[in-house]
Amino acid sequence: MYVPTFDDVRRAHARIYPWIHRTPVLASDTLDRMSGARLFFKCENLQKAGAFKVRGASNAVFSLDDEQAERGVATHSSGNHALSLSYAAACRGTPCTVIMPRTASRAKMRAVTGYGGEIVTCEPSLAAREAALNNLVERTGASFVHPYNDHRVIAGQATCVRELLDDSGQLDAVVAPIGGGGMISGTALSLATIAPDTRIYAAEPANADDAHRSLKAGHIIEDDAPDTVADGLRVSLRELTWHFVRRHVSDILLTTEEEIIDAMRLVWERMKIVIEPSSAVAVAVVLKHPDIFRDRRVGIILTGGNVDMYRLPWVDR
Amino acid sequence: MYVPTFDDVRRAHARIYPWIHRTPVLASDTLDRMSGARLFFKCENLQKAGAFKVRGASNAVFSLDDEQAERGVATHSSGNHALSLSYAAACRGTPCTVIMPRTASRAKMRAVTGYGGEIVTCEPSLAAREAALNNLVERTGASFVHPYNDHRVIAGQATCVRELLDDSGQLDAVVAPIGGGGMISGTALSLATIAPDTRIYAAEPANADDAHRSLKAGHIIEDDAPDTVADGLRVSLRELTWHFVRRHVSDILLTTEEEIIDAMRLVWERMKIVIEPSSAVAVAVVLKHPDIFRDRRVGIILTGGNVDMYRLPWVDR
Repeated sequence: MYVPTFDDVRRAHARIYPWIHRTPVLASDTLDRMSGARLFFKCENLQKAGAFKVRGASNAVFSLDDEQAERGVATHSSGNHALSLSYAAACRGTPCTVIMPRTASRAKMRAVTGYGGEIVTCEPSLAAREAALNNLVERTGASFVHPYNDHRVIAGQATCVRELLDDSGQLDAVVAPIGGGGMISGTALSLATIAPDTRIYAAEPANADDAHRSLKAGHIIEDDAPDTVADGLRVSLRELTWHFVRRHVSDILLTTEEEIIDAMRLVWERMKIVIEPSSAVAVAVVLKHPDIFRDRRVGIILTGGNVDMYRLPWVDR
Repeated sequence: MYVPTFDDVRRAHARIYPWIHRTPVLASDTLDRMSGARLFFKCENLQKAGAFKVRGASNAVFSLDDEQAERGVATHSSGNHALSLSYAAACRGTPCTVIMPRTASRAKMRAVTGYGGEIVTCEPSLAAREAALNNLVERTGASFVHPYNDHRVIAGQATCVRELLDDSGQLDAVVAPIGGGGMISGTALSLATIAPDTRIYAAEPANADDAHRSLKAGHIIEDDAPDTVADGLRVSLRELTWHFVRRHVSDILLTTEEEIIDAMRLVWERMKIVIEPSSAVAVAVVLKHPDIFRDRRVGIILTGGNVDMYRLPWVDR
């Protein structure tokens, strides 16, 4: 297992810079007042393809040598990694194939093909997904880019908190949502070098609390089909992200579904920006824990903004 | 009738600068591709109190002498001017009273009182509104700040396009929605001095096309209770805004309700920002008229982002 270093982050940043947005860091008087903290929102919802995932995906795609690039990239994802890898591959002119469960949303599928990605559908099971992926890689020689358990991906995600600190100055804490742990791992990787005293809090839905339970248990625990509105956070830690989480995360804070939805609507209403439920998980834990964050300078990573506008959770529930 | 000059704009800008956000100018590859133009979005939806109206309101409030300020300000509005005047008055520590029809939305009323404004409700008729306002002004000596037919307000709104051009560089055209004409008048006032060759297009719902008909007829025509989702644009021109509109506006372009709603959802989905229907009117006309805007550098003023998240027009219709 190769563990990426801050030198990898520097190289990643130089590599992906032309292909990503330098996203803004926003403030909100209202949320500062509600939380008692001074908040700095890193707006990856305004990122290319609508999510931070494009950082890791671009780093992986542009790390390939020409021969590898010609054979293409492949992944399995029904979410933002699928969009992001398709976008990054299109930037390089590399073929991209995404294995998606046939139950994935039409909107996400349209977005993937809109970026030029090819979709191979499979049954919605782990076994079917892996069989389809192996088959594809064997047939085409494509490079597999895992959504998070990949050192190139983690080094790419690590560029996000580096930009955040550049814009915010010193922070007491950074809060980001945790699913597979790619963003948290990248955050830990960068902060360990540039701001080792900044504490890292992961935010997780109570309905998908496998990372929380893993941290308490001291080993990876996988969730069995968690049910949460934060659909980007339904996956589990893997060995490389576990490496960072267990060493660098101060705590994993949990939220209810209602708190997630309220925080999401609050950000839309007051900050006038569109965030997806996964991002709202980080906002929700900061509002829930004034004991931890009051009077602190806190960075919050708003990880993405890809939302089906016809299925808003506060309207549907 | 005093017609404000660009010197008034300069003074307004210096006066209101501490109380407003310098809002960003955003770009969108997707909307550029769809329109064939190069678009620059001035994001007044991210402005204090959620709308550009705070510029004019602040300029009016901070133009008062101390004795006037002590007696307070008053207005009639069921929309963003009510919020903005309440906000600006609170910044100065000035009492603010807003005459609102008793049918106004609870959300807007809460926002006004949230900023410290006092609400006097009246029957939803012009006569009742004016009687309530006159009564108030007589009783308290408060200064009336009209939502748009006021030279201080127009000079304040004029600061918006000045910032836009600072950030975008030269533009072939600027597009803004038109209701009472405050933003369009301010835009004309600034551009006449700093960019006289930049064309000005007003965007109006076909269901509330009084400004369009006024421009064609050569005199002010008032609409009788127009019905449009763009609730900020239901009011009519008045003498001071008509002065600017008739002299400086190249054309007033119309959109259907469906086009407005589609443009609004498109901006939320692709740009990940929350805009209100009135703002979407300007986006809709640019998408509708490639004949006018293709290959041009076009500024679009996104005028506000105050939306009831429980009543989204694409969900309700």
